[in-house]
Amino acid sequence: MRKEVYVSEPQPSPFPARGTPADIEHGSAFTPKFDADGLIPAIVTDARNGGVLMFAWMNGDALRRTIETGWATYWSRSRGGLWVKGETSSNRQKVVELRTDCDQDVVWLKVEVEGHGASCHTGQISCFYRKLPIGRPSAGARLEHADGPPVFDPHAVYSAKS
Amino acid sequence: MRKEVYVSEPQPSPFPARGTPADIEHGSAFTPKFDADGLIPAIVTDARNGGVLMFAWMNGDALRRTIETGWATYWSRSRGGLWVKGETSSNRQKVVELRTDCDQDVVWLKVEVEGHGASCHTGQISCFYRKLPIGRPSAGARLEHADGPPVFDPHAVYSAKS
Repeated sequence: MRKEVYVSEPQPSPFPARGTPADIEHGSAFTPKFDADGLIPAIVTDARNGGVLMFAWMNGDALRRTIETGWATYWSRSRGGLWVKGETSSNRQKVVELRTDCDQDVVWLKVEVEGHGASCHTGQISCFYRKLPIGRPSAGARLEHADGPPVFDPHAVYSAKS
Repeated sequence: MRKEVYVSEPQPSPFPARGTPADIEHGSAFTPKFDADGLIPAIVTDARNGGVLMFAWMNGDALRRTIETGWATYWSRSRGGLWVKGETSSNRQKVVELRTDCDQDVVWLKVEVEGHGASCHTGQISCFYRKLPIGRPSAGARLEHADGPPVFDPHAVYSAKS
């Protein structure tokens, strides 16, 4: 039986210590910065069309596993464990490219999604399925659905394997 | 004289209180969740080609101003103030679309960038100008430059108006 979350003890960062600002911005050493909770933000986009699929967090071990296996692995803050994305729902994310930013405190993954091709637990392809009007008062602003219908039934997918 | 950062006192969130999980995931009320520091992550992509330009943070006031003015406004954690992106460098970001995710704890901005068309303080169009090989040991992994040359000289741009 596969489980969505693997609880693991905090590990020391597997990455080298950070250098000077010039090293960090212009060097080739990968020295990611983790926050006070030991986490780094991960932006995940669809390698096919560039749309943002989801946003998640990684600890050092999740980032190392993602790089080495090529399968997106996150840290679940709510469940306190490593989370190989899609192991329950079948919507695994194959990492096509991994980038970091100038400060090396964020990573960006371009992924191809298996299974239903969806990355949101609601069954939507992207977690970002609603938009907000711009240029109007924010008080009382209403979200508008901006994507297609869900591509899987989350009740069926998650309860079947729990 | 324009300044990049406006120091402001913390404001109460201008957004409504959050409802049930079903309201948050499926409703039309915009009830963004701010973290313990009063901030929400913002993913910023290029409205023309979908590339990720940068990642930043907003407090409630930055998010309200972004929605109402249509110009991307962030909270600078290092400088402790509101930051109308591009007011010094001329690379302002006009927000074409603003989305939020299933949990309403992240926002995604699609923007058109004025000036040099760059969003990184290094002069690069995107902050994510380096990539890391996938499927190899992470120890000793080296970043590779993955974008074109800088489109402005940061020393000239930032020192001229400081």
